[in-house]
Amino acid sequence: MDYQYKLDFKVRDYECDLQGVVNNSVYQNYLEHTRHEFLLSVGIDFAELTRQKINLVVVRAEIDYKIPLTSGDNFWVGLNLERSSKLRFDFLQDIYRTADEKLMLKAKITGTGVNERGRPFLPESLDSIFS
Amino acid sequence: MDYQYKLDFKVRDYECDLQGVVNNSVYQNYLEHTRHEFLLSVGIDFAELTRQKINLVVVRAEIDYKIPLTSGDNFWVGLNLERSSKLRFDFLQDIYRTADEKLMLKAKITGTGVNERGRPFLPESLDSIFS
Amino acid sequence: MDYQYKLDFKVRDYECDLQGVVNNSVYQNYLEHTRHEFLLSVGIDFAELTRQKINLVVVRAEIDYKIPLTSGDNFWVGLNLERSSKLRFDFLQDIYRTADEKLMLKAKITGTGVNERGRPFLPESLDSIFS
Amino acid sequence: MDYQYKLDFKVRDYECDLQGVVNNSVYQNYLEHTRHEFLLSVGIDFAELTRQKINLVVVRAEIDYKIPLTSGDNFWVGLNLERSSKLRFDFLQDIYRTADEKLMLKAKITGTGVNERGRPFLPESLDSIFS
Repeated sequence: MDYQYKLDFKVRDYECDLQGVVNNSVYQNYLEHTRHEFLLSVGIDFAELTRQKINLVVVRAEIDYKIPLTSGDNFWVGLNLERSSKLRFDFLQDIYRTADEKLMLKAKITGTGVNERGRPFLPESLDSIFS
Repeated sequence: MDYQYKLDFKVRDYECDLQGVVNNSVYQNYLEHTRHEFLLSVGIDFAELTRQKINLVVVRAEIDYKIPLTSGDNFWVGLNLERSSKLRFDFLQDIYRTADEKLMLKAKITGTGVNERGRPFLPESLDSIFS
Repeated sequence: MDYQYKLDFKVRDYECDLQGVVNNSVYQNYLEHTRHEFLLSVGIDFAELTRQKINLVVVRAEIDYKIPLTSGDNFWVGLNLERSSKLRFDFLQDIYRTADEKLMLKAKITGTGVNERGRPFLPESLDSIFS
Repeated sequence: MDYQYKLDFKVRDYECDLQGVVNNSVYQNYLEHTRHEFLLSVGIDFAELTRQKINLVVVRAEIDYKIPLTSGDNFWVGLNLERSSKLRFDFLQDIYRTADEKLMLKAKITGTGVNERGRPFLPESLDSIFS
């Protein structure tokens, strides 16, 4: 439970589905927002990069759903970033329910960068946070 | 029930919420998709206009929720387009459940165009469909 | 700018669409979450009511889109609740950008309650907040 | 490219994000809808099971994002179902762009069933499709 970055959330009712729990796809929203807020905290603005035609993209997601979040739950997402190759990086992201610190979800999201011509490319700002 | 354009849909389970019916916000997705498909059918590509920095935007939405759609429902959206002023147009959009042709929702969505400098602007392609 | 209830938000990047601004439908998510948090603050749990087969539902939405929210924007939603008839109530909800307190959106959301048999019904807890 | 079940889709503009392509989380919506339509085609109604307090749940998702879908794309999802243990099953799901039959995304979604008391449980209807 040692993370480089943590972000607090609360489940919103519209995120819950027929089963009365947060829909599976919504966790990817939580994970993405946490990654973007983390990047912002180290000086990397996802939206600004996008305007400069540099796209940070997800190439693989591995998500283990442990316990579902439900209406009213407060939770937090913990994030660690690791370089996995010259051009790829892994976000290790876990979700904990705040009330009892139970692990709800574990994910590994692998990303890379792509420039205007669609070629692999890591912006210097991102490269430098690994050194 | 006389419409310039109709589009068929089926409710997807992830669109339903805690109450077991389609969430209120999702109807705006259905209405937007129908508007964009209608525009495409008359030669106007919303995404292409966006790339040209011409933004078609909604300025007002009036939506009457009559009967909720639920899991498994087939439905269709009927659309009529009317000019309401030099620069504004109204999409009159109604949703019917296919099984019994019941009216589920009635909406009036008012739109306009905005150019790169944020000034009101109607692309010729859109202007011409009113004549 | 005098509201019974206020809630702070930050735009999340996944809420933005092709045009680079928050998609029209997403504002209904913000408005709904604010209503549910307000109701909770006065002792009414939307999800719990749903489990008791009492559905609070929206019957009409009027939304004026003034200025679009975009990536990175902090904003808040202000809410006032008014009774409009024996069984109907209006949520007057406005969205302001935090940085400059500009009004971004104005909405009137009309709701009612429906019991297990689908008949109009206002739970006492909701009825009592008007007296 | 031999699948037990296939479902056709078209990208809707509201599913695209700042980068002008379908947002990562939205693919899980496409995959879920395809699974539910497949289940319906073999006589299993996800929403009806939910009402009977039998929840089919996802325990793990592995998703490889190959090429992004964008505005206007027609695509289809192919699905194969395999039993991976007594109580678990894998949906192998691939997404192809219709225009050129390019593979856009590959996923393995592992599911199980849970009964009213939260215990692992496979409804007979689901059990029988493996024999």
